[in-house]
Amino acid sequence: MTVYEYAKGLILEAGNNVTKIMQQDIEIETKSNPNDLVTNVDKATEKFLFENIKKTYPNHFVIGEEGHGHDVTHTNGVVWVVDPIDGTLNFVHQQENFAISIGIFKDGEPYAGFVYDVINNKLYHCKVGEGAFENEHLLQNLAHHTLEKSIIGINPNWLTKPKLGPMLQPIVEDSRSARAYGSAALEIVFVATGKLGAYITPRLQPWDFAGGMIILSEVRGKATNMLGEPLSILHPNSVVVANANLHDDLINNYLGNYKDTLIKLHERFK
Amino acid sequence: MTVYEYAKGLILEAGNNVTKIMQQDIEIETKSNPNDLVTNVDKATEKFLFENIKKTYPNHFVIGEEGHGHDVTHTNGVVWVVDPIDGTLNFVHQQENFAISIGIFKDGEPYAGFVYDVINNKLYHCKVGEGAFENEHLLQNLAHHTLEKSIIGINPNWLTKPKLGPMLQPIVEDSRSARAYGSAALEIVFVATGKLGAYITPRLQPWDFAGGMIILSEVRGKATNMLGEPLSILHPNSVVVANANLHDDLINNYLGNYKDTLIKLHERFK
Repeated sequence: MTVYEYAKGLILEAGNNVTKIMQQDIEIETKSNPNDLVTNVDKATEKFLFENIKKTYPNHFVIGEEGHGHDVTHTNGVVWVVDPIDGTLNFVHQQENFAISIGIFKDGEPYAGFVYDVINNKLYHCKVGEGAFENEHLLQNLAHHTLEKSIIGINPNWLTKPKLGPMLQPIVEDSRSARAYGSAALEIVFVATGKLGAYITPRLQPWDFAGGMIILSEVRGKATNMLGEPLSILHPNSVVVANANLHDDLINNYLGNYKDTLIKLHERFK
Repeated sequence: MTVYEYAKGLILEAGNNVTKIMQQDIEIETKSNPNDLVTNVDKATEKFLFENIKKTYPNHFVIGEEGHGHDVTHTNGVVWVVDPIDGTLNFVHQQENFAISIGIFKDGEPYAGFVYDVINNKLYHCKVGEGAFENEHLLQNLAHHTLEKSIIGINPNWLTKPKLGPMLQPIVEDSRSARAYGSAALEIVFVATGKLGAYITPRLQPWDFAGGMIILSEVRGKATNMLGEPLSILHPNSVVVANANLHDDLINNYLGNYKDTLIKLHERFK
């Protein structure tokens, strides 16, 4: 069994466990601020993934949202970047619109990506070089669309920020329309399936985007930070994902006008 | 058969037709501007609804998005307010996240509401006084939540507008988080099911909100314009929907600070 096949079985099993625990009570705690929530389900799911991966592959590294592997400072060997519940606020308020996300890297190179929309039973997955899939359905390479004919994913919160607002406002104004779903992993795969033309956010952790960015690359989408630089799985990043033409347009003709502001923003991430 | 029972069968049949036509080509035209789209499916669905309603109930009035009954200037008798595809941009770009919406009024009083999320096969429906349902599942009366613990529905586009931006920004900032799904009918029923705490938008047509607002009232939610005034099914409105406490908070402590601006905005609707 390849690591890809093993991971595919594991994430489906983890999803199955999530739907079971959801029938019981969801226990909610806050983390860094009152809106940064974590539940018993986030913790149990990360524990399940971590323990199974380490039991099967003792030499692999696991970086997870809820505390595993935050001391990993290299990309040598096989690194799993895991978000047990991406979209925890949706999980708590809606009991849907969340995903389990896994990105697997070998010596720093993307190897396989998984985003599992548990409630809708949609597993987005790929092994690099072999095509990306929504369940058994092969995803097409992304078509090129202009911003004027694209629906973009961007959270209204960012437009209220003094430095980000003026930078992001022209993008929203020039787009066909904007959406916000509250799960970065799902929003990145919505770009990969063509449901969104682009997704932009000023700050994500590696576990939020690792699985999705690998799936997106497999359909020839482009994912970088807001400066157009490669994403790193070892620290937070701003994230811009889109089809290649729209991505270039966003970086060159919109975000490029705010390069100094963005450089300062990114210094905080290191 | 009651009008409610008839309407329930009719909207399910209309949804069934939509999924069939979607298998063929979707033909897209623009209306008032390049982002105001209409498809052959919008038109065929409204025609189907209009013709069936008029055949069964020749004395009923039908007001529909795609042109039927725009000469109706009264609320006497039975009035059906119909949106054949609410969320046409989603329909075109995503082939999901759209709904068929029907609100039925008798002598101006809400009688029955329907919002059909066709792709997920979820029919939200109510006959006033008999409870609201998601398919066969009875919806609970809305709990009261503060803005700080609520996810609100609001489109990022509105935050870019010179007059609306400053008015809506504090609401987004004080909320737990914000979402934008691109279908007013669905966003109103998401408030009715508790998935969103509130939904706010500065301009909707009656067919966008008629079905949803009746369902929302049935679970004791509150729907008014941004001035706190009742919604009218005969002209456009701004819309604020929420549980009763949060609704009062939004009207009194946020939107009430911009009363003069709002009065001017609403003069355009008459």
